[in-house]
Amino acid sequence: MNVMETLKQEQEKTSLLCVGLDTELHKIPDEFRESGNPIIHFNETIIRATQEYCSSYKINFAFYEQYGEKAFSLIKDTIALLPKGKLSIADAKRGDIGNTSGAYARAVFEDMGFDAITVSPYMGYDSLSPFLEYSDKFVFILALTSNIGSSDFQRLICDGKPLYRHVIETALSWQSQAHIGFVVGATHPDELAEIRTYAPDNCLLIPGVGTQGGNVSQVLQANGSAPALINVSRDILYGGVNSETTFSHALNKAQYYAGLLR
Amino acid sequence: MNVMETLKQEQEKTSLLCVGLDTELHKIPDEFRESGNPIIHFNETIIRATQEYCSSYKINFAFYEQYGEKAFSLIKDTIALLPKGKLSIADAKRGDIGNTSGAYARAVFEDMGFDAITVSPYMGYDSLSPFLEYSDKFVFILALTSNIGSSDFQRLICDGKPLYRHVIETALSWQSQAHIGFVVGATHPDELAEIRTYAPDNCLLIPGVGTQGGNVSQVLQANGSAPALINVSRDILYGGVNSETTFSHALNKAQYYAGLLR
Repeated sequence: MNVMETLKQEQEKTSLLCVGLDTELHKIPDEFRESGNPIIHFNETIIRATQEYCSSYKINFAFYEQYGEKAFSLIKDTIALLPKGKLSIADAKRGDIGNTSGAYARAVFEDMGFDAITVSPYMGYDSLSPFLEYSDKFVFILALTSNIGSSDFQRLICDGKPLYRHVIETALSWQSQAHIGFVVGATHPDELAEIRTYAPDNCLLIPGVGTQGGNVSQVLQANGSAPALINVSRDILYGGVNSETTFSHALNKAQYYAGLLR
Repeated sequence: MNVMETLKQEQEKTSLLCVGLDTELHKIPDEFRESGNPIIHFNETIIRATQEYCSSYKINFAFYEQYGEKAFSLIKDTIALLPKGKLSIADAKRGDIGNTSGAYARAVFEDMGFDAITVSPYMGYDSLSPFLEYSDKFVFILALTSNIGSSDFQRLICDGKPLYRHVIETALSWQSQAHIGFVVGATHPDELAEIRTYAPDNCLLIPGVGTQGGNVSQVLQANGSAPALINVSRDILYGGVNSETTFSHALNKAQYYAGLLR
């Protein structure tokens, strides 16, 4: 069974929910700090609470890299906690000249064993081709991101079309062994519906629900039945005052979102 | 003395040359592998051979991240080898939503202590503002990169101007505590000259000389006397068959480039 079929099966069992493990030491309850490895202890609690409700987990590298030398051990130890069948996404937004992107691809797909990565399109095809050479992996290209700054450049009109549309249409013309997907923020439902007219079948990674304000029902309506991963991070992670309430808060929130995202 | 004055003084003593420590295990002579820490042993040799001729060192994170858990220790151990006064550049091409970029900024500027970082502009102002809040640091924004894929999106014409010009002009309008610079590939001397008409004083990080084919005298002519760091990586690093010839190759090449870049 390939990664696309596994995801589909997992989503039928659970939901479109992707849980973002944006774990930050200063945001987690004190009780976790009493253990030798608070970040892993916290992630284990969140994964245990949410696994019945979500089909994928997204690890944003920034939150781990701020811990310096331990960063990649923390990421690998977190991947090792993921239940079989869950899609693992390296939210690393990488992209560099060819030989350099090759090193990033090896790090993320081979050394760490992720199923998917997020990449930045700014440097063009040869900066992404090393990622696209991996069959049975997902490569999510930033298109229209969830933040306010997405209007600064992504919405610039070039030859009658916004830049994010050029990115998507150009990427769809590229040779790829990997499955090409796109990042489209939940904060732009109208553009999401428009994107589905020219990229009907690509899997979209949709962040921005919850703390960032994206509306789930608008997103679902705009996306239709096309493949999607809808990410929620902070709203699920933070809400408990100890390990027990962290577990029950994450479980309740994941159950709530899964109810909307079946 | 602030970071800009230190750089200027160092460039007067040495040259505009920036040495890129793009160290890859499979490209270094066997002899280094006999030591317990081949990458650090190799970097120490290159730094010792080149320090008289260059004013800065650039560490491309990809080449270190491919070694997994050890990545950030290798980066920190390399920074510790840099002689006082040399500008240290984290070539990480980061950029993410605000709270995430904040974590990247802390990692690179605080935990690792770099003087400068490269960032990707695709996600707009709020994705870069956490980096721009650091005074006495350089933030180099990707504008027109040295690779072939730079034509895919960076040269798209939006409202009568190429995207890379929008990036530069928009960034020049941003509030910043940090010194804003831009990455412009040595492979585009005509555009470099044009960029100097609207960004005359910003420091440019110019990669693409050497293996990538950029021509030093064309670059210098296009740049004039404005602040610049001209990066050479592979052409200096790789050419020896043991530690002694690696040292002499790197010294000779650095001396050669420094002669052109005074």
